[in-house]
Amino acid sequence: MKHGGDYVSYQNKYGKLPIDYSENTSPFGIPEAVKRAIIESLSDAAKYPDPDCRSLRDKLSRHHKVPIESIICGNGAADIIFRLALAVKPKKALVTAPTFSEYQAALDLVNCQTDTFQLDPQKDFLIDEGLLDQIDQNLDILYLCQPNNPTGKTCPGKLMQAIFEKCKAEKVLLVVDECFLDFVENGETKSLIKATKATEQLIVLKAFTKLYAMAGVRLGYAISGNQPLITRMKNCGQPWNVSTMAQAAGLAALDQTAYVQKVLENTQMERAYFFGQFQRLGIPFVPSEANYILFYSDVPAFDQQLAEKGFLIRNCSNYKGLDDAWYRIAVKAHQNNEQLIKAMEDILNGM
Amino acid sequence: MKHGGDYVSYQNKYGKLPIDYSENTSPFGIPEAVKRAIIESLSDAAKYPDPDCRSLRDKLSRHHKVPIESIICGNGAADIIFRLALAVKPKKALVTAPTFSEYQAALDLVNCQTDTFQLDPQKDFLIDEGLLDQIDQNLDILYLCQPNNPTGKTCPGKLMQAIFEKCKAEKVLLVVDECFLDFVENGETKSLIKATKATEQLIVLKAFTKLYAMAGVRLGYAISGNQPLITRMKNCGQPWNVSTMAQAAGLAALDQTAYVQKVLENTQMERAYFFGQFQRLGIPFVPSEANYILFYSDVPAFDQQLAEKGFLIRNCSNYKGLDDAWYRIAVKAHQNNEQLIKAMEDILNGM
Repeated sequence: MKHGGDYVSYQNKYGKLPIDYSENTSPFGIPEAVKRAIIESLSDAAKYPDPDCRSLRDKLSRHHKVPIESIICGNGAADIIFRLALAVKPKKALVTAPTFSEYQAALDLVNCQTDTFQLDPQKDFLIDEGLLDQIDQNLDILYLCQPNNPTGKTCPGKLMQAIFEKCKAEKVLLVVDECFLDFVENGETKSLIKATKATEQLIVLKAFTKLYAMAGVRLGYAISGNQPLITRMKNCGQPWNVSTMAQAAGLAALDQTAYVQKVLENTQMERAYFFGQFQRLGIPFVPSEANYILFYSDVPAFDQQLAEKGFLIRNCSNYKGLDDAWYRIAVKAHQNNEQLIKAMEDILNGM
Repeated sequence: MKHGGDYVSYQNKYGKLPIDYSENTSPFGIPEAVKRAIIESLSDAAKYPDPDCRSLRDKLSRHHKVPIESIICGNGAADIIFRLALAVKPKKALVTAPTFSEYQAALDLVNCQTDTFQLDPQKDFLIDEGLLDQIDQNLDILYLCQPNNPTGKTCPGKLMQAIFEKCKAEKVLLVVDECFLDFVENGETKSLIKATKATEQLIVLKAFTKLYAMAGVRLGYAISGNQPLITRMKNCGQPWNVSTMAQAAGLAALDQTAYVQKVLENTQMERAYFFGQFQRLGIPFVPSEANYILFYSDVPAFDQQLAEKGFLIRNCSNYKGLDDAWYRIAVKAHQNNEQLIKAMEDILNGM
């Protein structure tokens, strides 16, 4: 499994859908108003979608208080990640290990040499000042996932500022993936979106996928004050990448403040629930700030035993920097979380 | 306007939507069963889409009688065109002029040297045997749009066979874009899809966009017996490029045989209507086999005068090989076609 969410393979093997803890999306489903917007958009879906996503970018521009020209929309954030690599064609990149694997996949496509900054499990995989030493003028691009996937840790504010300043000084493009920052308490205070206005050395990635449970709809975007970069990214792929339905869904999603509040409250409460249960069960875990939790278990094939019990979790053995005793689960709704903990406890008790 | 279908700019200028003759899609809208399938799929759209589009590829495999492994789905055929260029990274390509501009856009992304084979308006832009001379071992890839966009002409069968044989002999990858072949009478007899099974030098592009009026949904695919190429294309972009809704739409669309019949009958009848009217009005045109017609008018700003009357048509001046007196219209439903002809006649009469 290269990524989470391979419920199709699960279904083929077990004849039913799993309770899916391998995908880090809101457990409350697509907001009803977003569904309605998609259904209404079908009357326009015979036509080509607006290649410039003008209405959606206009609304995002007001939402984030950044110029519309600094926004590019994509067929999910993953589309943006590939366009970015193609637009920059970096010769040397730096990524952390572990982190989201699509940065590397996109860099491979442009034959970029990629260095890694190994995060230390003993320090909860937190980025430390050692990273600063790897930022120099030979580096073209640095990817930071904020909070990091799969660890759920954000880079401390002061260090992030120092990284950003050094990137500006050394002319390194800083890519900050804030796709999960919405789930972090006071996440907006950690966002670098506002900083995009004053520099060309920064691009921030965002997605609708996770917060609004829209992974199947495909909608992400990026914000950068580097206008030529945004234009090149637009040209590094087809013009009509964002479907009519996705554009309509995004417009509706931005109004869902009550839904967002509910998701955030659930994340906070249930994350704490998992922390408590993991402590009780003696399962080591990383104290995530996001809506997913990385944990460690040397029980052989822990994920397969959970699969037998109906739960799909993310085996992290194919993350660079992690071995096969690391797993990631999403923070879902309470009833399912209780069932998952019960299943884990049963396995630990040899049941 | 780089492409047809820029109804957003039209709307911004004229305060209403145009009758859009610049998009070559079925005039009958998305089939109701396809709409229903999209709406039903929303209950799955919180999850990531199946990155391997297994159900859809399985159905396409039976539809076209080709192995499932030879099929790759994309976010519209345009997504496929970019993945193909990235996967092949050709050094030298050959395209006709005029033809669909996204081949060139994708080739530019990989810095490919592109030669053009100029089609002759005096010969209705038909491909002739001169093309064979440009196929040699220095060539990596040849794009043929069948029928060609914007001319609507197919390459004669014997010549196509000779081109295909020479491509195989010279190890040139032949890309045949059959996105509009469904609209051609007995188009299936001209298709090279079956031939993909016996060679690695062929890839056929297809789309749901046009026949099923699904341009806003984004769904296309390609078929090739070149398994390593299909795998590379899969890796030349994000894994989740086809949305949950698009996969459901495609599955439903393949059952719409009555709808397809209706579209084809309308195309045939209304194409003949336009031919007759163009002759009556003395407007030179290319006798298209597809659901769009290229015509010539030296009336200054003919398209803008039609825009004033509520019609958006495709100005072809940015097609390499055409000047600004060439325009393309789609073949739509009769009532609108009559209105368009009336508007053209009024302009010709100085009204």
